[in-house]
Amino acid sequence: MKILFASVLIFFVMNAQAQTPDEKITSLGLQLPPATKPIANYVKYVRTGNLIFLSGHGPTKADGTNITGKVGKDLTIEQGYDAARVTGLSLLATLKDALGGDLSKVVRIVKLNGYVNCLPDFTEQPKVINGCSDLMVAVFGEKGKHARAAMGMVALPNNIAVEIEMVVEVK
Amino acid sequence: MKILFASVLIFFVMNAQAQTPDEKITSLGLQLPPATKPIANYVKYVRTGNLIFLSGHGPTKADGTNITGKVGKDLTIEQGYDAARVTGLSLLATLKDALGGDLSKVVRIVKLNGYVNCLPDFTEQPKVINGCSDLMVAVFGEKGKHARAAMGMVALPNNIAVEIEMVVEVK
Amino acid sequence: MKILFASVLIFFVMNAQAQTPDEKITSLGLQLPPATKPIANYVKYVRTGNLIFLSGHGPTKADGTNITGKVGKDLTIEQGYDAARVTGLSLLATLKDALGGDLSKVVRIVKLNGYVNCLPDFTEQPKVINGCSDLMVAVFGEKGKHARAAMGMVALPNNIAVEIEMVVEVK
Repeated sequence: MKILFASVLIFFVMNAQAQTPDEKITSLGLQLPPATKPIANYVKYVRTGNLIFLSGHGPTKADGTNITGKVGKDLTIEQGYDAARVTGLSLLATLKDALGGDLSKVVRIVKLNGYVNCLPDFTEQPKVINGCSDLMVAVFGEKGKHARAAMGMVALPNNIAVEIEMVVEVK
Repeated sequence: MKILFASVLIFFVMNAQAQTPDEKITSLGLQLPPATKPIANYVKYVRTGNLIFLSGHGPTKADGTNITGKVGKDLTIEQGYDAARVTGLSLLATLKDALGGDLSKVVRIVKLNGYVNCLPDFTEQPKVINGCSDLMVAVFGEKGKHARAAMGMVALPNNIAVEIEMVVEVK
Repeated sequence: MKILFASVLIFFVMNAQAQTPDEKITSLGLQLPPATKPIANYVKYVRTGNLIFLSGHGPTKADGTNITGKVGKDLTIEQGYDAARVTGLSLLATLKDALGGDLSKVVRIVKLNGYVNCLPDFTEQPKVINGCSDLMVAVFGEKGKHARAAMGMVALPNNIAVEIEMVVEVK
């Protein structure tokens, strides 16, 4: 009985470890949006060698609209965190597109820069950008742990609440 | 007659494709300014492997003065677009210098980050930075299509209207 | 006598050139702080190939507190310069940690982005960020000369005076 229990436990643990990033996204109850289109004369990502540079992405919801406003004024920190998480899903959608649909080709999330639309007295940018950082670690585990910079911006395109860009090492 | 016309057409199309980036700059009626000097203890670019990281450049005109002011307040969006284009010419001058005078060594404009000097309610950063993005695509074609981030800054050095930096893959 | 003097001179010159970055830091009368810990779900640096991407660092003093406030309002330019220098020491501490304690593995400081917490009318960001740039050149000589961008931010995490990130090529 003990052996059976241990076997079942090992099966589940190994299965958890064997989860692909896509399975992980599903098991988190999340769904990637369709990859967004650029709003000007540029592209959403460029690959050079084993690095993918992702354009600045915004918090585009499933219905195509953006989460807008200044965090700390129009949005709470929690709403800012959600906006960063939604932005992270948009980044993952682009990344998946860049990798021919296979997020398991991600070797490491190298760098994440998070820009928060806010007022001069707002100082909680890290708590906001955590929405994206936490998502990357939830999806990729150790490979999702990245170098990061979080900053406050006086204004962002279309008044989006956050803008986030990443550099990713891939196979 | 048809064959002659087709031949001439093919000649022009091939010629257009065979244009070097420098010829393209000339055919656009543009001229690169002299490469600017850094204003502090740094350099205008560093090459590492096949990547060139370009410093943040400003809209330095042919006479050495900068286009200054906040876009949306002191400058219109159109004037901001022009400032971004002038900044792009300055970036190309540095890039040419970095490549020993030969812009045809550019493999890909990888990433472009554009920072717009503006007020908290300005949300048209993409339209401004297009001035530089459009230039890169005009000069390099498909190789000029880059990943991008555009943001609003509360203030920039010497009150320049825009600051733009790039990462470029080269031969 | 002349030969002895020349020999001594040559010895000192060669010795100066042979100084490791760590010896240089000591000879400058500086001391690296302990490497700081991330304040959220990210890491202080990620290495990919021969490049190290360092997270945005702040001006954390030896006692663990930060230099805070807006430069040009709460701090003078000189105090801002000092904050950038302190931030540079924190970056070097992380870099040393990343290189197993051996800063002589640095091949080149590739890129340095400096973000200054300031008001809309502040335009001396380069003079502030020089505090970090000058340090890198003092420690690494020619290898310390980097591409750079300096910008003004409406707000920074925990109201730190400056935030600086770097890309470094290493052996």
